[in-house]
Amino acid sequence: MQATYDALMAFTRETIALGQVAGLLSWDQETMMPKGAATQRGEWFAAMETATHARQTDPRIGDWLAQLDGTDLGPEAAANLREIRRSYARNSKVPADLASAIARLTSVSQGIWARARAEDDFAAFAPSLKEVLNLRRQEAAALSDGGDLYDALLDDYEPGMTGARLDTMLGELRGGLVDLRNRIRGADKAPVKLDFKFDGDKQMQLAAELAGVFGYDWTCGRLDKAVHPFSSGSGTDTRITTRVDPANPFNCIYSTIHETGHSGYEQGIRSDYLLTPLGRGVSMGVHESQSRIYENQLGRSEAFCGWLYGRMRDLFGDFGVSNASDFYALANEVGQGFIRTEADEVQYNLHVLMRFDLERALISGDLEVDDLDAAWNDRFLADFGFAVDKPSNGVLQDVHWSVGLFGYFPTYSLGNIYAGGLYQKLRADVPGLDGDLARGETGAAIAWLRQNLQQFGGLYEPATVIEKASGQGISVAPLLTYLDGKFGALYGV
Amino acid sequence: MQATYDALMAFTRETIALGQVAGLLSWDQETMMPKGAATQRGEWFAAMETATHARQTDPRIGDWLAQLDGTDLGPEAAANLREIRRSYARNSKVPADLASAIARLTSVSQGIWARARAEDDFAAFAPSLKEVLNLRRQEAAALSDGGDLYDALLDDYEPGMTGARLDTMLGELRGGLVDLRNRIRGADKAPVKLDFKFDGDKQMQLAAELAGVFGYDWTCGRLDKAVHPFSSGSGTDTRITTRVDPANPFNCIYSTIHETGHSGYEQGIRSDYLLTPLGRGVSMGVHESQSRIYENQLGRSEAFCGWLYGRMRDLFGDFGVSNASDFYALANEVGQGFIRTEADEVQYNLHVLMRFDLERALISGDLEVDDLDAAWNDRFLADFGFAVDKPSNGVLQDVHWSVGLFGYFPTYSLGNIYAGGLYQKLRADVPGLDGDLARGETGAAIAWLRQNLQQFGGLYEPATVIEKASGQGISVAPLLTYLDGKFGALYGV
Repeated sequence: MQATYDALMAFTRETIALGQVAGLLSWDQETMMPKGAATQRGEWFAAMETATHARQTDPRIGDWLAQLDGTDLGPEAAANLREIRRSYARNSKVPADLASAIARLTSVSQGIWARARAEDDFAAFAPSLKEVLNLRRQEAAALSDGGDLYDALLDDYEPGMTGARLDTMLGELRGGLVDLRNRIRGADKAPVKLDFKFDGDKQMQLAAELAGVFGYDWTCGRLDKAVHPFSSGSGTDTRITTRVDPANPFNCIYSTIHETGHSGYEQGIRSDYLLTPLGRGVSMGVHESQSRIYENQLGRSEAFCGWLYGRMRDLFGDFGVSNASDFYALANEVGQGFIRTEADEVQYNLHVLMRFDLERALISGDLEVDDLDAAWNDRFLADFGFAVDKPSNGVLQDVHWSVGLFGYFPTYSLGNIYAGGLYQKLRADVPGLDGDLARGETGAAIAWLRQNLQQFGGLYEPATVIEKASGQGISVAPLLTYLDGKFGALYGV
Repeated sequence: MQATYDALMAFTRETIALGQVAGLLSWDQETMMPKGAATQRGEWFAAMETATHARQTDPRIGDWLAQLDGTDLGPEAAANLREIRRSYARNSKVPADLASAIARLTSVSQGIWARARAEDDFAAFAPSLKEVLNLRRQEAAALSDGGDLYDALLDDYEPGMTGARLDTMLGELRGGLVDLRNRIRGADKAPVKLDFKFDGDKQMQLAAELAGVFGYDWTCGRLDKAVHPFSSGSGTDTRITTRVDPANPFNCIYSTIHETGHSGYEQGIRSDYLLTPLGRGVSMGVHESQSRIYENQLGRSEAFCGWLYGRMRDLFGDFGVSNASDFYALANEVGQGFIRTEADEVQYNLHVLMRFDLERALISGDLEVDDLDAAWNDRFLADFGFAVDKPSNGVLQDVHWSVGLFGYFPTYSLGNIYAGGLYQKLRADVPGLDGDLARGETGAAIAWLRQNLQQFGGLYEPATVIEKASGQGISVAPLLTYLDGKFGALYGV
């Protein structure tokens, strides 16, 4: 049986390598690719998809799995077989021409979305979105075995999670957040103003320093600029990106720390898992728990903001914020904004929740693409209390749907919920945390995350690893407690 | 038959796309990849090779080709079929385990060569070279159908060319070059000295300007630094690299123009050939004809050097060369050097010719690897008139043999020979050339190259496209005439 298992793993190794190559193509597309290469790049993705799909659906996998059925080769082999079985079942259900049509289409539709957003023209994007939605619904139908279409898509990003369970959890979260937000709106706190031009090169210098502070391993990664920051890769090649806005250094700072959290998870996985199904973050939600805990619970803490304020004074000189307390308030201001990625910790999940509801309606057929712009604007007004002024601040702001990512948005909120539980346990286990952060040190915190979560990669199912690490069941309570405590104190409410 | 042809072309399109993806992996490896990712990258290349080889030897290709035998679907289809037949026959002849043994060995032997070169220790490299040579001879035997082994290898790089024909042509070239070089050695011309530190950022700014001057299309390309400059890609994504030496700006300048020539060829190919066998430069020799004519006949001309001198004075200020005439002499100095890649136009081909003779003797078995170092040094002394001082300046200087590239070297000289004929015709057809170049304009020259050669990509066989474009048979006479005229005037001999 060991020989059969070894043959399956050797085969899987090359399939995973092809997937990683496709990941590099995406990184390159966002950072290095010449503009004129978009169509050709689409052909590359399609060819990679064909080659990968052929391997993922190779009938030998079915034979090997059947031979290995019921054998016990230890917990890691069991986890590898679990992941291979899931992937094989999934990929065998999707016809090859559908998979390659999705790859080709989404590579082009992303460009169409980008132009439509630049021109604030939802109608220019709608036909592409309809095509993408149509293909992804076909895919969901192939995957669902007659079950819920949305759950079938969600399962790609967060195995084991369902739309119904999310609906309950996110509903609870929404209640707590709206209450907290309303209290903050009622508070009489004057916002701190920022009026300074932060040099771009110095921001990138600070970004590199911050990645290092949060444990980024430069021998296995690099930092570049991208319009929309992201992290990519795994194992010994995980790359991060950030962006620079001269008027708002927090954009660069917290994008960098966030992406360092994602890459930190990948870099923290046991090195012997490289190129196996266990050698990557186990789900999008668990991934986001890492990026969020780095960015928010650690990076936006009062203690770390105190250290960061000093470093920024060193770098930029007097930038018009007179003390660390004001700087902390500025980094955590609960404002009125349109953009999800720029939202504060309190309102961020409200942005996600509306996307979750809208995309579920799109997938179920309750909402048509032609009505999406209006539905977005109605819901935004209801949830945020002010109106969307233009599509680039509304329905066109996120890339996700243009590349077929339906079922992905709720993993952002799941990540925040997971991070809430993890942080509660981390504080209990690392009592010197605030002192560390006040000195710009994250070593103990990151060692805790590495030890209790990151190292395992795909060994445990998402819910299992979160519950093991946080020492409790998954619920929204720790996140709401944390937010109430932090923002209650900040706003005196 | 059209449907069969279309099926074959659709299949081929994805195989070509995979090859282009592998090309991007190489580009990334040389420009962007974190150091720690080398082993993982090796796994990526191996997985891409497996996926590509499976497609290249897919028996459906044989079936499609058999069905299309004797059909006439027009000249472009005929050319596509010619290329697909050649590639399929080639890949089917080489046993899969031999192909993968070569891939595995050469990825290791390159590292051994690099260490041996760093330590100036040929004996440390010799065992690897023997293995590489042994496997490549086995491959040549599989490819040759009982014919000449060297010709079988050469055919990969310059289809239609033979060792015997090269022997005659390169022998003629050698006679003319040795004669010219001896006259130059006898001339009493004091070399121009260069003693200035050329700022790296300004060199890169100049490099970008020069790529533009030579018609580089930035919407379909980009320029980065690399230790060993190269160009890569095709169609709408062709990238160039250069390097910066503060003491010697010519390194950056002429590397850039050279690589712009390679990428210019790819960018000049008819866009409807993209992702077909016709959508790339037809051979290494024809490719080199473009890089060389950009670099030498245009870029090192007296007229262009005059313009370049002015631009460099604008950029760097007074760098110690007092007039355009001295600058021209400096850019074309015939010195005494060991290194092929740093050689002037007169001596460059002498470097290539000795490699050609030595590698033919290695392949035929007339020369043993253990005797190669001594054979190199003897020949170098005979051809250049001074002795090699250490292996890194001699037999260990080039990477080619370590990665199995036998039959590749002569394409460098073929490129120069082709460029000689092309340039003769170009001068006749573009009478205002010198005036253009003196103003830093290459538009008419490059339009001529595009019209007469580049646009055709793989449509014509190498010799055909060169003869059509240059309006004459292939011979060394135009190159020798050009070199005699240029260097005779420069050195007054």
